[in-house]
Amino acid sequence: MDRLLNTFRIRSSLVRECLAECLGVYIMILFGCGSVAQVTTSENSNGHYLSINLGFALGTTFGVYVSRGVSGAHLNPAVSLSLCFLGRHPWTRLPFYVLFQILGAFMAAATVALQYYDAIQFYSGGHLTVSGPKATAGIFSTYPADYLSLWGGIMDQVVGTAALMVCILALGDTRNSPAPAGLQPVLVGAVVLVIGVSMGSNSGYALNPARDIGPRLFTYIAGWGDEVFRAGRSWWWVPLVATCAGALVGTLIYELLIEVHHPEKGLISEPNELTRWSL
Amino acid sequence: MDRLLNTFRIRSSLVRECLAECLGVYIMILFGCGSVAQVTTSENSNGHYLSINLGFALGTTFGVYVSRGVSGAHLNPAVSLSLCFLGRHPWTRLPFYVLFQILGAFMAAATVALQYYDAIQFYSGGHLTVSGPKATAGIFSTYPADYLSLWGGIMDQVVGTAALMVCILALGDTRNSPAPAGLQPVLVGAVVLVIGVSMGSNSGYALNPARDIGPRLFTYIAGWGDEVFRAGRSWWWVPLVATCAGALVGTLIYELLIEVHHPEKGLISEPNELTRWSL
Amino acid sequence: MDRLLNTFRIRSSLVRECLAECLGVYIMILFGCGSVAQVTTSENSNGHYLSINLGFALGTTFGVYVSRGVSGAHLNPAVSLSLCFLGRHPWTRLPFYVLFQILGAFMAAATVALQYYDAIQFYSGGHLTVSGPKATAGIFSTYPADYLSLWGGIMDQVVGTAALMVCILALGDTRNSPAPAGLQPVLVGAVVLVIGVSMGSNSGYALNPARDIGPRLFTYIAGWGDEVFRAGRSWWWVPLVATCAGALVGTLIYELLIEVHHPEKGLISEPNELTRWSL
Amino acid sequence: MDRLLNTFRIRSSLVRECLAECLGVYIMILFGCGSVAQVTTSENSNGHYLSINLGFALGTTFGVYVSRGVSGAHLNPAVSLSLCFLGRHPWTRLPFYVLFQILGAFMAAATVALQYYDAIQFYSGGHLTVSGPKATAGIFSTYPADYLSLWGGIMDQVVGTAALMVCILALGDTRNSPAPAGLQPVLVGAVVLVIGVSMGSNSGYALNPARDIGPRLFTYIAGWGDEVFRAGRSWWWVPLVATCAGALVGTLIYELLIEVHHPEKGLISEPNELTRWSL
Repeated sequence: MDRLLNTFRIRSSLVRECLAECLGVYIMILFGCGSVAQVTTSENSNGHYLSINLGFALGTTFGVYVSRGVSGAHLNPAVSLSLCFLGRHPWTRLPFYVLFQILGAFMAAATVALQYYDAIQFYSGGHLTVSGPKATAGIFSTYPADYLSLWGGIMDQVVGTAALMVCILALGDTRNSPAPAGLQPVLVGAVVLVIGVSMGSNSGYALNPARDIGPRLFTYIAGWGDEVFRAGRSWWWVPLVATCAGALVGTLIYELLIEVHHPEKGLISEPNELTRWSL
Repeated sequence: MDRLLNTFRIRSSLVRECLAECLGVYIMILFGCGSVAQVTTSENSNGHYLSINLGFALGTTFGVYVSRGVSGAHLNPAVSLSLCFLGRHPWTRLPFYVLFQILGAFMAAATVALQYYDAIQFYSGGHLTVSGPKATAGIFSTYPADYLSLWGGIMDQVVGTAALMVCILALGDTRNSPAPAGLQPVLVGAVVLVIGVSMGSNSGYALNPARDIGPRLFTYIAGWGDEVFRAGRSWWWVPLVATCAGALVGTLIYELLIEVHHPEKGLISEPNELTRWSL
Repeated sequence: MDRLLNTFRIRSSLVRECLAECLGVYIMILFGCGSVAQVTTSENSNGHYLSINLGFALGTTFGVYVSRGVSGAHLNPAVSLSLCFLGRHPWTRLPFYVLFQILGAFMAAATVALQYYDAIQFYSGGHLTVSGPKATAGIFSTYPADYLSLWGGIMDQVVGTAALMVCILALGDTRNSPAPAGLQPVLVGAVVLVIGVSMGSNSGYALNPARDIGPRLFTYIAGWGDEVFRAGRSWWWVPLVATCAGALVGTLIYELLIEVHHPEKGLISEPNELTRWSL
Repeated sequence: MDRLLNTFRIRSSLVRECLAECLGVYIMILFGCGSVAQVTTSENSNGHYLSINLGFALGTTFGVYVSRGVSGAHLNPAVSLSLCFLGRHPWTRLPFYVLFQILGAFMAAATVALQYYDAIQFYSGGHLTVSGPKATAGIFSTYPADYLSLWGGIMDQVVGTAALMVCILALGDTRNSPAPAGLQPVLVGAVVLVIGVSMGSNSGYALNPARDIGPRLFTYIAGWGDEVFRAGRSWWWVPLVATCAGALVGTLIYELLIEVHHPEKGLISEPNELTRWSL
């Protein structure tokens, strides 16, 4: 078996990383959008909003476990972009990462649609709609609440993605108080959980261009039509642009308030007398 | 006391492993089916769907803690089968593992029925039924939603078990980013949690032939009758076959997309420059 | 400050251990019964059954963190008794441990009554009752469901406490797959969580004689009267006796199925080829 | 990029610590108050009381991760005060810490108000009120339940903050059974979770003067008016005073019952025979 499998071995690190990003995002969205499908089609009887928060959170956790050792588990074009800005990821690999992240999200949406095909047909009576009481497009990508203005939506995604980025950078900052390496995927999932619990209401906390555009493209093709791009006053571009802007804002905040001030850059700081006794 | 206990000592590693698998599955199903019994008989007042997800998730966690040091904590014939395929478990032990896994699930179902005897009698008025408003067979084994087609059900279990297997293999892959050894049981439980939250709606996420057939046999004997095999258009065989197929699919996906491409097979890969800075 | 505090220093290890057990149980019951008080007096608007499960689970976790380094964090007479049977705790200390465990639970119940005094008065209209629609005795100690027979109740507590003990012994068994030492309090809390989620419905999962009798004595004195001993066909003695019996049953099950069969007793077993590759 | 950022580098440890406390509290309150905003404005459809508990708990966790390596992550004037009393923090830094903690909470409240501007306008019809059916001031700071007396409220906050402090001191006490250093932020979050689940009902578990007064000042300025100081019979000073008193009580309890009795002060105690076998 081992020998058979080894004939498929690929040595290019870029291809390996792209496959890992693709599978990582796939796992993340499979669980994430799956949980929305479950709550939507069961009309809250097999889960609530909190199960959706858990679905995306643990989806992220396992997406990171699946890919971190190979690609570093960006799983999010806005994260990849920020790491490029910080000089921690080569710009030349950015387009490949983004492409395979979107591909993974697209395929995950297709899998969820297949797995919940009967349920979606039963729930919607066969009418695939983007809005209205039996809308099902929200299983796959995000749409803003009716009350949300465009600027409110942009603000919402900038704040949410900035908060995500601050926490992610803190968790991995070895000169601050990083999480144990083997549990960072769990804590990144917990960041997604708390954002879902505190910033999900306005527009469904996309936080990630690939997570949103991949499944949106799938719904466009699979029968929901171009309404997926027109709904919410053409909401679709906000999760692409505002998340990237937010990630850069969050990166700047963490760098300017915490990271650049670490003493002896490049060395792990020794705990000083004060921190020894603190939390 | 120690000396008295030691007279029961068994030295055969196969017997020890079978006992461990049996107790591990027993603990898993005792908590899992117990949580369904609690939610069903209390009519959602002492728990919701999410408590059932937690029951199976933490049941799995503690089932793994109980047995991992002895048998490796497969707890699932589909997992055992996949490990045999990968050459990581001897084929000769497979039937023994499976037998004791089913035995553990059977005995756990019997214990739940005993512990909830009064509650089930009170809830059902003494009529042990498989379908209808006061059905109680679903406490023990899985049944499909009314809307689910046969192919939809097979797809559901193939996808679910494949996702389980991808995550399990990633968590233990020392050349990727494995979870800390002592916490792998917790993370395996978290995989079961997220699958329950995102893929439980269609047919109750069996994911495990032993988890389903053991309790189903118990209900067959204990008064629910042969309806347990006829219900859902003879659903009973799907959790046996589709889960095994799904586990193999998941194994192939992880192997072909991630594991075979690891550089220097057999060695733990050094973190490269990119991953050092990533999540 | 340090010097002032040091004048209170006690050197007797027995007294130190008793104080630790007392504070540990106090913390456990303060959070546990507090969560019942919150759910009861807010009529489910500030929490549900799951919050009670979390209250006792995390209460246990922090009770263990508070006391483990000093007394070993038994926090439960049934656990102390089992450890004495196994020869892992001196019989001579058993009565002292039990006494201070009960004392801690009693004082915690008093604190909860004080903290929720206004809420209980408001909710109950000032009538402290043990049963009926505005009953509040259930905030402090356990009462069986109306449908539960005496034998059903005994069975319920035997099974529950046995399951608790099997899991606790597995978590600390260094020759099996123990949890990381620093996280065992979290995992013991998780055992309490899963038991609450799967075995709480029948009689409120006492699992612990001190947890039940301490608060019951408090309610007896504080205004609920002798009905607390008469309710549920004199239920009060079941959580005392059945939990101890259950703990011994669980201890025997783990010892006979797992622990006595470990090879080379006294040494940490090396992971064998099979377990290296398993979960 | 690195060089550009480094021009902003500050070397003063006090300024660095103040920035870290400010950002840490900001993250904590951003997630905490955000979760209240989500539950309030969605009228429980995008979350329940438990999501608020999770919001503050995980908010605390990530607030601690963000700041611990720099300032020790007090994030709470009552904690800073207790550490000063114990001689573990210099009194001279206390006012700076407190100031920046309040500043962080104020700015987080402003961010939440901005992010939920449309939602709050929609929910409240544009009327920013402190009490009544569409009150929104409770998104930002705490108000007592109608039934709560002043003494009941003081007792509530003293008990709650004392419990917080006992658990925090236990988690970091290296001569007891501390949590793993890298996971202490998670466990501090879990303390906040269990307090929210068991002591949130009476007055919203402020536990922290900065968490309460910062957002209260924001609401005073931003349109809710001086009612925020008059509501609940001038409740506003209770979360300032009672939490500090409670933190000192909790500190004394832990010191007098556990910490001063540790043998060989200054050394990590060896696990004795008893604790080796216990939980």
